[in-house]
Amino acid sequence: MSKKENLTNRKTIHIEWGDCDPAQIVYFPRYFAYFDACTAGLFKKAGLPKREMLQTYGIIGIPLVDVRASFMAPSRFSDTVVVESEITEWRRSSFCVRHRLFNKNVLAVECFEIRVWAALSVTDPERIESKPVPREVVNRFSSEGSHGAARQKSRRKKR
Amino acid sequence: MSKKENLTNRKTIHIEWGDCDPAQIVYFPRYFAYFDACTAGLFKKAGLPKREMLQTYGIIGIPLVDVRASFMAPSRFSDTVVVESEITEWRRSSFCVRHRLFNKNVLAVECFEIRVWAALSVTDPERIESKPVPREVVNRFSSEGSHGAARQKSRRKKR
Amino acid sequence: MSKKENLTNRKTIHIEWGDCDPAQIVYFPRYFAYFDACTAGLFKKAGLPKREMLQTYGIIGIPLVDVRASFMAPSRFSDTVVVESEITEWRRSSFCVRHRLFNKNVLAVECFEIRVWAALSVTDPERIESKPVPREVVNRFSSEGSHGAARQKSRRKKR
Amino acid sequence: MSKKENLTNRKTIHIEWGDCDPAQIVYFPRYFAYFDACTAGLFKKAGLPKREMLQTYGIIGIPLVDVRASFMAPSRFSDTVVVESEITEWRRSSFCVRHRLFNKNVLAVECFEIRVWAALSVTDPERIESKPVPREVVNRFSSEGSHGAARQKSRRKKR
Repeated sequence: MSKKENLTNRKTIHIEWGDCDPAQIVYFPRYFAYFDACTAGLFKKAGLPKREMLQTYGIIGIPLVDVRASFMAPSRFSDTVVVESEITEWRRSSFCVRHRLFNKNVLAVECFEIRVWAALSVTDPERIESKPVPREVVNRFSSEGSHGAARQKSRRKKR
Repeated sequence: MSKKENLTNRKTIHIEWGDCDPAQIVYFPRYFAYFDACTAGLFKKAGLPKREMLQTYGIIGIPLVDVRASFMAPSRFSDTVVVESEITEWRRSSFCVRHRLFNKNVLAVECFEIRVWAALSVTDPERIESKPVPREVVNRFSSEGSHGAARQKSRRKKR
Repeated sequence: MSKKENLTNRKTIHIEWGDCDPAQIVYFPRYFAYFDACTAGLFKKAGLPKREMLQTYGIIGIPLVDVRASFMAPSRFSDTVVVESEITEWRRSSFCVRHRLFNKNVLAVECFEIRVWAALSVTDPERIESKPVPREVVNRFSSEGSHGAARQKSRRKKR
Repeated sequence: MSKKENLTNRKTIHIEWGDCDPAQIVYFPRYFAYFDACTAGLFKKAGLPKREMLQTYGIIGIPLVDVRASFMAPSRFSDTVVVESEITEWRRSSFCVRHRLFNKNVLAVECFEIRVWAALSVTDPERIESKPVPREVVNRFSSEGSHGAARQKSRRKKR
């Protein structure tokens, strides 16, 4: 009945001279840096600023295992763009983030990230391994999650 | 009958401190900068250094319209990695590039780019539009193109 | 009698994960990208967004000829810093910009740039050469400049 | 009597498309990333690859406290440049590095870094503090240090 609403973050980005290449358009790797900041912004909006989140949960980051992006229209320095970001799927120890970058209300870039909740291995600190995403983290991104234990319970049953 | 062999470029990259993030692994947007340089290296190997190529063919670049990457294993500063790159498909005005990054002989990152042969629009210099890739450019990437069928055959025998 | 007030720009910057290195502090070249954006922000505040400015005056940019910076305290991802920027001196075809980056009200980085007003050479478009900064551009940065022709005149005499 | 010779590192750098800005020249913050890699290359040549060095000596890095650079001539994508780097002065817990970037044998950029030998504070791991540079590290950069006076002499003759 109640459609789950995902937390969405909107970030305004001013395209800088240094983000652009000799073709005078954004150098595409810079988009990924934008999106990485947008994911961080989304977590911050959920009450999890990155530095605190890493300390609280003992993780080293949320590195990518997979990413894809489509570039529909170029952006240029002095443009101001808006990126809408949301987590589209939670898996056991990973999650999917979608970013949509709009330039003058036109969808210019779309990006899908798959990230893992990652910690150093206890047995071999040279290794990084994924860990289950804590339930309380996931809950912060759904509107229900923030509404308390009762609805929380019913939501669990549905799965 | 005769399978065309693609030109392949191998580029050795020393992972720098500045390419890594606070998790001490390569910050993923940097991989795309590596791969962009690898595509340029592939064209250079085909006899088309980027600056010359742009001047010769009147294009502004070979921007991406689509990219995806999988990150199988992290790399760290002071690592030396090797990237193998080749063009896997030529379309009318676009082409696909595959990059495989190996760290100690293990495939660590795989990336697929779709790029367009792009020029400024004649009617509106604010617009970028794709143009057909010149046949002579395509030919430079196949062993047949640069050698002809006869020499091709003898070359294969030597291997 | 009347102390000339320089136009000052204050820019708030959120330090991103991707701006930091394995020591978990801002990778110092990123500060220069921040400052470059701050200079652009200062010109924008003076009514000269970079893309428009380049078109209006036929320049290719305002590249640096000299820069120095002192790093007094590190900043980390999730920090929010403020950069105050102003042009401290106008010369014939160059100018000096000072940036001061504050982290929690402590001066953390100070940077001095010398930039030139640069255009492509008319005789050799491969060359970049400096040109005199237009008077109207300079005027935009002083509080007097924006107050009209009368005071403008008296100011010229003082020089 | 015997003038100490400093270890010098020469690093060849291919200027990439992504290192350049809309003016089609190297975006100046990228030079600092080049130089940072050159300092790492110099230490590697002295037998101290960065990752090993950090582990061996328990430092978090060699961050900058001061840097200045002069840009005499621009470089462009597809250019190949050479950077000569050497440590010009050792102080108690800091040292000075000079980089000279040559493009077609013309000195194009000169940069002076002051870096500190830095570790996390024992009392407050949130703080970074400088530590004395170990004597054995310093010695690796002088020809005397690594060979002794006798071998030094014979080595000079060979040149």
